[in-house]
Amino acid sequence: MSFTGASILSIEQFSLDDVERIFAVADRMQPFASRERFTKALDGAILGNIFLEPSTRTRISFGSAFNLLGGHVRETSDISSSAFVKGESLQDSARILSGYSDIICLRHPTSGSVEKFAKYSRVPVINGGDGANEHPTQALLDLFTIKKELRAKNRDINNLRIALVGDLLFGRTVHSLCKLLSLYRGISVVLISPPELSMPEDIIESMRAANIQVNDCEDFYKGIGDVDIIYTTRIQEERFENKEMASKYRGKFVLNDDIYTKYCSSDTVVMHPLPRDSRPEANEIDFDLDSNPNLAIFRQADNGIAVRMALFALVLDVVDQVEKTSSKIQWYVSRK
Amino acid sequence: MSFTGASILSIEQFSLDDVERIFAVADRMQPFASRERFTKALDGAILGNIFLEPSTRTRISFGSAFNLLGGHVRETSDISSSAFVKGESLQDSARILSGYSDIICLRHPTSGSVEKFAKYSRVPVINGGDGANEHPTQALLDLFTIKKELRAKNRDINNLRIALVGDLLFGRTVHSLCKLLSLYRGISVVLISPPELSMPEDIIESMRAANIQVNDCEDFYKGIGDVDIIYTTRIQEERFENKEMASKYRGKFVLNDDIYTKYCSSDTVVMHPLPRDSRPEANEIDFDLDSNPNLAIFRQADNGIAVRMALFALVLDVVDQVEKTSSKIQWYVSRK
Amino acid sequence: MSFTGASILSIEQFSLDDVERIFAVADRMQPFASRERFTKALDGAILGNIFLEPSTRTRISFGSAFNLLGGHVRETSDISSSAFVKGESLQDSARILSGYSDIICLRHPTSGSVEKFAKYSRVPVINGGDGANEHPTQALLDLFTIKKELRAKNRDINNLRIALVGDLLFGRTVHSLCKLLSLYRGISVVLISPPELSMPEDIIESMRAANIQVNDCEDFYKGIGDVDIIYTTRIQEERFENKEMASKYRGKFVLNDDIYTKYCSSDTVVMHPLPRDSRPEANEIDFDLDSNPNLAIFRQADNGIAVRMALFALVLDVVDQVEKTSSKIQWYVSRK
Repeated sequence: MSFTGASILSIEQFSLDDVERIFAVADRMQPFASRERFTKALDGAILGNIFLEPSTRTRISFGSAFNLLGGHVRETSDISSSAFVKGESLQDSARILSGYSDIICLRHPTSGSVEKFAKYSRVPVINGGDGANEHPTQALLDLFTIKKELRAKNRDINNLRIALVGDLLFGRTVHSLCKLLSLYRGISVVLISPPELSMPEDIIESMRAANIQVNDCEDFYKGIGDVDIIYTTRIQEERFENKEMASKYRGKFVLNDDIYTKYCSSDTVVMHPLPRDSRPEANEIDFDLDSNPNLAIFRQADNGIAVRMALFALVLDVVDQVEKTSSKIQWYVSRK
Repeated sequence: MSFTGASILSIEQFSLDDVERIFAVADRMQPFASRERFTKALDGAILGNIFLEPSTRTRISFGSAFNLLGGHVRETSDISSSAFVKGESLQDSARILSGYSDIICLRHPTSGSVEKFAKYSRVPVINGGDGANEHPTQALLDLFTIKKELRAKNRDINNLRIALVGDLLFGRTVHSLCKLLSLYRGISVVLISPPELSMPEDIIESMRAANIQVNDCEDFYKGIGDVDIIYTTRIQEERFENKEMASKYRGKFVLNDDIYTKYCSSDTVVMHPLPRDSRPEANEIDFDLDSNPNLAIFRQADNGIAVRMALFALVLDVVDQVEKTSSKIQWYVSRK
Repeated sequence: MSFTGASILSIEQFSLDDVERIFAVADRMQPFASRERFTKALDGAILGNIFLEPSTRTRISFGSAFNLLGGHVRETSDISSSAFVKGESLQDSARILSGYSDIICLRHPTSGSVEKFAKYSRVPVINGGDGANEHPTQALLDLFTIKKELRAKNRDINNLRIALVGDLLFGRTVHSLCKLLSLYRGISVVLISPPELSMPEDIIESMRAANIQVNDCEDFYKGIGDVDIIYTTRIQEERFENKEMASKYRGKFVLNDDIYTKYCSSDTVVMHPLPRDSRPEANEIDFDLDSNPNLAIFRQADNGIAVRMALFALVLDVVDQVEKTSSKIQWYVSRK
């Protein structure tokens, strides 16, 4: 695809080349994400960061990524303080709001609404999550994390063995990740979930059509035993119709140091789209794994900055400007 | 008036020369509003954008206009998260908040409160709407739109024939627009509303005193038949004491392609302060008019950027700096 | 202490030298706070301004101070729109959010939570108030105000006589101020409050251990009679378990022109951490004192900008960059 001026709506837009192009640019964004240098590539540009559903990390990550490229951010994060309540159509909102910025990130509670918004927008739109449908930048940063974690072990994504754990029915991040994995060769996926929350059949079929080896595994401990990556997801209570059903499965797929040591290979990487639920009854990934160097969840969150910078730079066609307009940072930076 | 350092509180501040001065500067802002160039005229300045009543488009429009001039924006959009709940007086808020920015935009639910705030503020204040009272920047962008739409037809505002449709009792934007029209010659205004929502008598009188020809018209189809501009307004439910009364008038003044073709001149321009209510029971302006080149509602919203940039530039006295500190935009811009 | 890279969590971190260092830098920030010059010292840096409890002035003051140093601000001000509701631990929030900015200001409703957050944050954290515990920047700006007000009368902080009035039990700002005053010589403090809201015993003891002369005074009029500074605090209703108890003490310690003239020395300075409650039943400091040049409450609020700029500049180690990267302001500035 040509990125210039394109909206980023779904993982299905991308070919393998597209994904590799995004990751190559994300690698070039690393010195900026880690505050070695700063750039003026988007000095004067405006991001409309519109979040009509609760979010902190995705919203701030998009905004910071745009600031790191030198741009301004105008934000809407409260649906009640928005004109949407006054009977305005999504297409009107799109036409009007797109006059106020150079690019828009939109999170919307309804599946398909971001695509509709983009159709009427006069500027490119990035999908920040539309209901249970898609969250393409999360899937990209997940795959970018897999790539980097494997690269550190001198491997690449081809021939990856990955276990997807938890709520595979409602978790849009695993759905998108599965689609992205279909672009690679020799992948095998282990699905571990309660039967009521199992992966939708159409996604399993499309993975098989792409020659991914898919195995269902009812035994959590066996399923995590022979993989390169364990990708655990949150039980998303807000997707359930009643909270009792949600709580029934809480705590069934806990990963802690004991279980990791007993059942996993010593270099199995642990990922999670975050936030992890650390309440005692959930405790998805125990704190006692925090010192394990294979716990990649915080590196994963950090990678979101570089991937989102890459998308902004590609869509607004300033990739080559980023280094050209850059300088060394003069203030105190603690991170390496 | 001298704009430098002045607060913009009411349409009544402006002479014809003032209005024409604002529009001349707004024209010069166009290349910046349409992202051909960007400027550093207000690099380092801070706008305090304080919205104590729900709003999306006005709030973002002010913020983006300030960003487009190179400035920073600090925003407050949630009344509950404000110190106002702790018993602080408006005059204390004004004195303190005006220490945090170079200029303030304030929307407040109570008539007259922005003027009071401005009295105690140490920096210029722009009225972003105070209850049912005034919304001067909306009136200016409406008149600027009329001027541009007529200019495209080689006409000027003098001798304009305009129909004002809908809720003329509570709609503050039509009230302010009427006052502005009083500055011009040969204007004729057709008022079309249900009797209970008719234009306040004092505004009619002041229009007549300014030699505007004012005609009441109970028949919607007749009233829109012989005018240059149809200006339709939203039934503002939040201004009614009960919702039944509001709904009684919904849908009575629908404009669609059929009605437009049958009753209007082929070059009648259609305007609306937005948001238009597109719920089936309201449907103020039908989607089937969206492809009609005379539907000016989106150009109208866009004009808000140039007009607000002009006001900022005039009040902060940087009109001549805007071009001097400007550069060509290097990133992808889709709009013409 | 070394400020570079340090978190600012508690007043107890500071030696007398540290406080004087902050104030010396705050003095150098004055031309920027009062918009004579603007600086690019933090051009490209990002502040994460996270307020999980209602606040307007502190939040905007931090944000504006960072903008005045040239930096970007990413803001979170609504606890419900935050990931914290999804069961995420404070330590995860700290690790992730600290990847999105160069420095964080955090206000949190729970005592001790900012310190815990800072422990896991990868960037410096400034405490913007943690429950009833600490609000160190408020205490610093209070003392900075005392210093400046006394300097205008050719005095310094040593040998200060100050009356602390109102809610001395729950008011975290007076607690922090008492600790700071312990760094100076010859201080005498008069405590004036209802018995149920009197100063905690441990704070009185630590003041006495620092050779501060502490006197309880039940008679408001006598207590304010022979001091250099009257520091009045708000009855913080939200700290009470029931509102009746709160209202019982409202209006008991009103200061107005009449009382000031009758009981105070003619150059006694009046301070208040703001917002002052101006509802008739509270009326902490009457409007009729607003024209009294000794009413320092608005200068006090303004001083917050310079003090917070100083802390940012010290922690991010750009004090010497501030003037080096500065220019004269070209836009209209009304204040002196």
